[in-house]
Amino acid sequence: MQSAPRIAVDAMGGDFGPSAIVPGAVSAARERPIRLVLVGDTPRIEAELKKLDVSGLSVEVVHSTQVAEMTDKPADVVRRKKDASIVVAARLVKDGRADGVVSAGHTGATMACGMFILGRQPGVDRPALASIMPTEKRPMVLTDVGANLEAKSFHLFQFAVMADAMCRAVLGYEKPRLGLLSIGEEEGKGNSQVKEAFQMLRASSLNFLGNVEGRDIFRGETDIVVCDGFVGNVCLKLSEGLASSLGRMLKRELTTGLLSKLGTVLSMGALKRFKRLVDVSEYGGGLLLGLSAITIVCHGSSNPRSIHTAMRMAADYVSNKANETIAQTLAQNSDLTRFSRAKAANGNGA
Amino acid sequence: MQSAPRIAVDAMGGDFGPSAIVPGAVSAARERPIRLVLVGDTPRIEAELKKLDVSGLSVEVVHSTQVAEMTDKPADVVRRKKDASIVVAARLVKDGRADGVVSAGHTGATMACGMFILGRQPGVDRPALASIMPTEKRPMVLTDVGANLEAKSFHLFQFAVMADAMCRAVLGYEKPRLGLLSIGEEEGKGNSQVKEAFQMLRASSLNFLGNVEGRDIFRGETDIVVCDGFVGNVCLKLSEGLASSLGRMLKRELTTGLLSKLGTVLSMGALKRFKRLVDVSEYGGGLLLGLSAITIVCHGSSNPRSIHTAMRMAADYVSNKANETIAQTLAQNSDLTRFSRAKAANGNGA
Repeated sequence: MQSAPRIAVDAMGGDFGPSAIVPGAVSAARERPIRLVLVGDTPRIEAELKKLDVSGLSVEVVHSTQVAEMTDKPADVVRRKKDASIVVAARLVKDGRADGVVSAGHTGATMACGMFILGRQPGVDRPALASIMPTEKRPMVLTDVGANLEAKSFHLFQFAVMADAMCRAVLGYEKPRLGLLSIGEEEGKGNSQVKEAFQMLRASSLNFLGNVEGRDIFRGETDIVVCDGFVGNVCLKLSEGLASSLGRMLKRELTTGLLSKLGTVLSMGALKRFKRLVDVSEYGGGLLLGLSAITIVCHGSSNPRSIHTAMRMAADYVSNKANETIAQTLAQNSDLTRFSRAKAANGNGA
Repeated sequence: MQSAPRIAVDAMGGDFGPSAIVPGAVSAARERPIRLVLVGDTPRIEAELKKLDVSGLSVEVVHSTQVAEMTDKPADVVRRKKDASIVVAARLVKDGRADGVVSAGHTGATMACGMFILGRQPGVDRPALASIMPTEKRPMVLTDVGANLEAKSFHLFQFAVMADAMCRAVLGYEKPRLGLLSIGEEEGKGNSQVKEAFQMLRASSLNFLGNVEGRDIFRGETDIVVCDGFVGNVCLKLSEGLASSLGRMLKRELTTGLLSKLGTVLSMGALKRFKRLVDVSEYGGGLLLGLSAITIVCHGSSNPRSIHTAMRMAADYVSNKANETIAQTLAQNSDLTRFSRAKAANGNGA
């Protein structure tokens, strides 16, 4: 247990607060060795703990008196709400008392705490948000999904390096197959950033398959798809929205006519499994990569199951030393980005 | 019939050539007044016409001896294949012998013919490709879906103006509800181009609802969604890909277990209707907006039904004078783009 990863959990975050967060965290710690550091209002956290079986688990409660509210500006939380649960959680990591953070609270505040309290991992210019998505085959990683609305080619390259390490550590894939999102599969397709990133990725040690198009994402032939945060955020939300819309359209079609209705009742189990397959929320939250420690941002609506998944991902990320892999891969490929970084520093890079 | 729109059809384009194009064009002309100008190999076109009832229709056949092949570079087709069917079709429009072009051939060549032979409509800086997409409610227009991989704010504004006119003319919506694709609904969200375009659109005469996110596209609460061509192309292909993937996943789930199988048989009709609802190819092709005449680019795999739809759209676009609406709206709102155009001319515009 001494070596189990210590995850600081913002117990006050999310729509349901400690009543969803605490059970989710405890259930993850029952499944695998995780030392829990629960941050928030001690009486409320302890009330939740009393309802659960925590025998044999390592559970620390760290009291905090404030909460980041949805109306707070992210930077204000970091600067002024020094005792907000997410600020305290990030500081515990900074002080070496935890190895990673999980929060279902204010997304912007969590990201700001990561950026300003934890800070960037050496060698990374821009942290990126990664999301795990279902596909027809095994889950894949899409990044950036919103941390960087514009990205130079060497940023895209770094996103790929970080996603590769995360994919190995969290999903356990050996040589993740990497694709660069563009508007055609051929090498020359895309905007200038994509074309330049293509060259770097091809020359790198990563398992780069080439450009992929929007239509390929869900086929499951690539394990990582890299893009800038504007495109990635649109893709993520479009996928969620389209899956829900199709679900509603299917339901409407299936409830028209008696035979259809009977058919629907008979195929209910299959439809439920289908719904779970396409439910993006099954996959926990977004992983903020490139900070000195892993930070996972969960949906506000997270239930214990999503928190459980996020805790497991954070623990795997730490145990499998993903940040070390990132550092190694960046060092190994540092020559590749030198040119475009210099260009960008002179104000004319792609 | 004298006033019916004359549509030049590239009869040689697409995977099936005249055998799909000619019946599709004729069936559209049976449905509403369209004067057909079929361009290509006369004997093959006439062989197809013989199989069809063309009594009372206005059908002109214009012979051409060449075809744009998939391996041809678009610019080479315009410059060197002067007798390619798509080149001849575009030239007929240029010479005032037709009012619009429909082609299922080489997409790049069709776009190049539009740009270089037809030329831009006065006042439009960048033509844009628009696609009609299904939603939970009525169909909507997404633009740009690939003609401009990067777009300044005033380009985005012009895309909106063109889509508005097209939406009125082709879909018959009275005051199309317009959304700007971004990563959050609030006014300040997005990259610099989007933020600047937001201001112009809000001050314009268009029915602008504000920013929309990826998740909103298929809900059917907006009739037009505007974005740059990189994002739009990714969205279009992602939607097609996700709909197919979900269809396959659903089928796999439904064919597991005896009860499910029986259920599937009973709900087959509903599943078929569902498939049609989400089949993007039902909606004809992409409309290239902002040229001196409407140009419609159909999928290579177009069947007579898709060609029929494209012909109907081209005819409605012409009959309802969409290009005049674009010119009027641009004139009416010309002050709004002046500042960002000047900035871009100085090389520092968003």
